[in-house]
Parts: sequence; structure tokens; C-alpha cells
Amino acid sequence: MAELLIVGLGPGNAACMTGEALAALEKAEVICGYTGYLDQIAALIPGKETFFTPMKQELERCRHALMLAQSGRTAALVCSGDAGVYGMASPVLELLPDYEGVEVEIVAGVTAALSGAALLGAPLGHDFCVISLSDLLTPWEIIEKRLQSAAEGDFAIVLYNPSSRKRSGYLQRACDILLRTRSAETPCGVARNIGRPGQEKQLLTLGRLRDTETDMFTTVFIGSGTTRQIGGRLVTPRGYSV
Amino acid sequence: MAELLIVGLGPGNAACMTGEALAALEKAEVICGYTGYLDQIAALIPGKETFFTPMKQELERCRHALMLAQSGRTAALVCSGDAGVYGMASPVLELLPDYEGVEVEIVAGVTAALSGAALLGAPLGHDFCVISLSDLLTPWEIIEKRLQSAAEGDFAIVLYNPSSRKRSGYLQRACDILLRTRSAETPCGVARNIGRPGQEKQLLTLGRLRDTETDMFTTVFIGSGTTRQIGGRLVTPRGYSV
Repeated sequence: MAELLIVGLGPGNAACMTGEALAALEKAEVICGYTGYLDQIAALIPGKETFFTPMKQELERCRHALMLAQSGRTAALVCSGDAGVYGMASPVLELLPDYEGVEVEIVAGVTAALSGAALLGAPLGHDFCVISLSDLLTPWEIIEKRLQSAAEGDFAIVLYNPSSRKRSGYLQRACDILLRTRSAETPCGVARNIGRPGQEKQLLTLGRLRDTETDMFTTVFIGSGTTRQIGGRLVTPRGYSV
Repeated sequence: MAELLIVGLGPGNAACMTGEALAALEKAEVICGYTGYLDQIAALIPGKETFFTPMKQELERCRHALMLAQSGRTAALVCSGDAGVYGMASPVLELLPDYEGVEVEIVAGVTAALSGAALLGAPLGHDFCVISLSDLLTPWEIIEKRLQSAAEGDFAIVLYNPSSRKRSGYLQRACDILLRTRSAETPCGVARNIGRPGQEKQLLTLGRLRDTETDMFTTVFIGSGTTRQIGGRLVTPRGYSV
């Protein structure tokens, strides 16, 4: 059978992977992914053939994994966090009609919204939105519109890709949009290198977040109208009468 | 040390748990949770003391777990999916200031938005919102406002608790709100009993979803303006030029 497994690795260490994800790596004969994740799983796949490519070669990686599967080998394509959230599951499924006979299975993982939330407290205890600030593949007007709508709906908000070397100032622009309707005192949090060496967290206000430096290893959490800071943690109540 | 571990079990079988979650159950001397999850983990905790309570006794369960930890025993409070998404992490952190000396650690898990998405394809490949339709703890007007904002922002939307015996018709009301701005042909999906016996999935349009029966074991996915049905799967493109 021609099989491709798309595997979410979780936030950054083997203990955060599911049993299903570990079993998928074991089953696969060849493992594909982004070079940045190879170290994370090298110890789990001793002796396996690998095909790792740098950033911005996502489609090439997907096509190669599909081609390997079509040639009759069981392939795995690994993603950080969850394979479905800004991951490789969606481009692979878009390409799949060109690769007859390939069966795709997607193995979910813990995305940074969940692992970062656990590190900071419980900011996602009620309704929330996940928005990427990267405009590499999305026009900035759409990102801006979504930030505006998320603010109007009083959602807790998780921001992926808050900035990079080429996109400094994006988090500031996002905060400015949210500050139109949300108080500068809104509790926020920042999680960095989740589950990896150098893991960091910080609680701060939306006003302070605006002037905070972030990078591509940072996930940002912005509280809703009910989010509070309790005992050094960020908490969005579910609504129980505590 | 007085320690309480709040553990997300993932969607419903041990293979979907992380290594960290398994280790937490092993470490704990006493396990607390909702009776509905006891079967799911019984085989993993042979001989352990348990404290399981029925639904609607969430705060009692949290207080008991905190009390056990304060008495010096390592306790775990288990939640289906992720502990932070509509789970017990937030009420525990709200109660924590009353339990001096208790250290809380939160172990993230795969929430139904992620496991259901993997089952259906990749509906969360771009920005998305998670909204619960339960008005047990949230006024319906807030839910309605969030649905409206999510529609305006053209988010893919995941609905938790789409209905229950006492809340039939809620999904219909939600769809009617979305249909004001989103086409009746919008691709949608339904996942039921994810990771459990009787697992089911269905792809359908927003127009059809409106008249579909769901229950409390169902998670609903509503596509954004770019979501498509490809090869029997629900896919929201990330934006690559495929």
C-alpha cells in the first residue's frame, strides 16, 4: 500500500508527542520534514532514511513525500505542533489528487496554542481565535480584518508567527488594532521555545505587549474581556461561580 | 510537596495521549475526574485510588483534587481533550488562591478541534475560531455575538457542544447566524466519537448542517471562504500556490 503519514510532533520534545505519533515514526520507512525539526526527532528514528529541506521549500517537501509514498514506501511527513494548524496537512491534501493510489493519514499533535496556554495558565478556558501574523501567504488586509473581528467578538486570541526578521512591527500593528476596542490593561502572555531548551514565559498587559520584541519561536496570547491574572498565571474563566 | 497535575487525555484512547500525560497518571497517587472518562483510563491506572464525579459537579471535583494535593498527596485531575480548552485548568486556577502551598502543573492534550480536524482532513489549515454553543455558563447573546464576529472575520469555525437533549435547535440557530454572511454551499464537517468506538465523520454543506442532528459527542467544523472539499476531505488552504 502507498501510504503517507502526516505527523504532528507537538511542541518540541518527545514527551509531548502522542503514542500515535511515535508509532507513525516507527512505522515509516522514510521521514520527511523541515531541517529545523530533524534534531528534535533524530534520536527517535535511528538509521531511518530522511529527506529534510530548509524553510520555504514546503511544497517541494510535500511533493517528495507523496512521490515516495506512491513509489510504494511508507513515508512520514513531520510537522511541529499539529499537522493541521498552519501545517503540511492542508498542502498535501491539495496536492493529493495528482498522486493516484496514495493513502494519507493525519496524526494530530499538540499545537502551540495548547502547549503555550498550559505554560501560561488557562487563557483558552473559553472561546478563542487563532490568527497567524505572517503575510507571506496571506494579504495583510485579511489579517487585519480578522484581528478586528476577533476583537469585536471578545475572543481570547492566540497569535502565531508574531514577527520575524523581515516582519518587525507586525505585532505592534496587531496590538494597535486590538487597542481600538480592548483596554491597554488587558492581560496578555508570551510563550517562547515551548517544550525546548530556553523555554520562557512572560505575563504582561496589551499596552506593554505592543512594545515587546518577539521572534518566530514565540506564541502570543491576548486575553478576552474576562481574562485575569491570578497567582502569576493567565486565566480565562469558563464561567463557573467560583 | 503538595502537587496537583491537570491532565488532558486527548480525544479518547490511550494512543492519543502524550508521553507527559501518561507519566503524570503514573506519578499521581490519586486520580480525579468525570465518571465518563474513568473507563478510558482504567487500564492505565490499575490499583490507583480514584475520585470520579458525574457531570455538573465540576467545582466539587476541582476542590476535592486541590484538597487532596494540599493534604500532601500527588493528585491528578483528568480532562478529555486538552485540560485548558473548556476544561478544568481554568476553574482550578481560579480556586487555587484558597489552597496555600499547592503547586499546579498543567499537561496539554489534543483537543477535539485538532483530532476532529485530522479525521476530516485539514479544515484548520488557516486562521480559526473555537466556540462552544453551550449556554449553561455563557449567556446566549455572547455566543451569538461571537458567531457573528467569526463569520465577519471569515474564520474557519469549530463548534463544541453543538447540542444536547436540553438544547436541541442550538446548532440550527448558530447556522442561521452564519448563513447571513456565509453561503449555504460552504463546506462543513461533523466528527463524532473521535478516537472512540463508533467514530464517525460526515462532510456536508452549511445549508445541510443546519438541519443535521448532533449530540454532545459531536464536534462541528464550518469552512471559511477558502475551505474546499477535496477527495472526500475538508481542506482550508494555507495559501501556497499549489
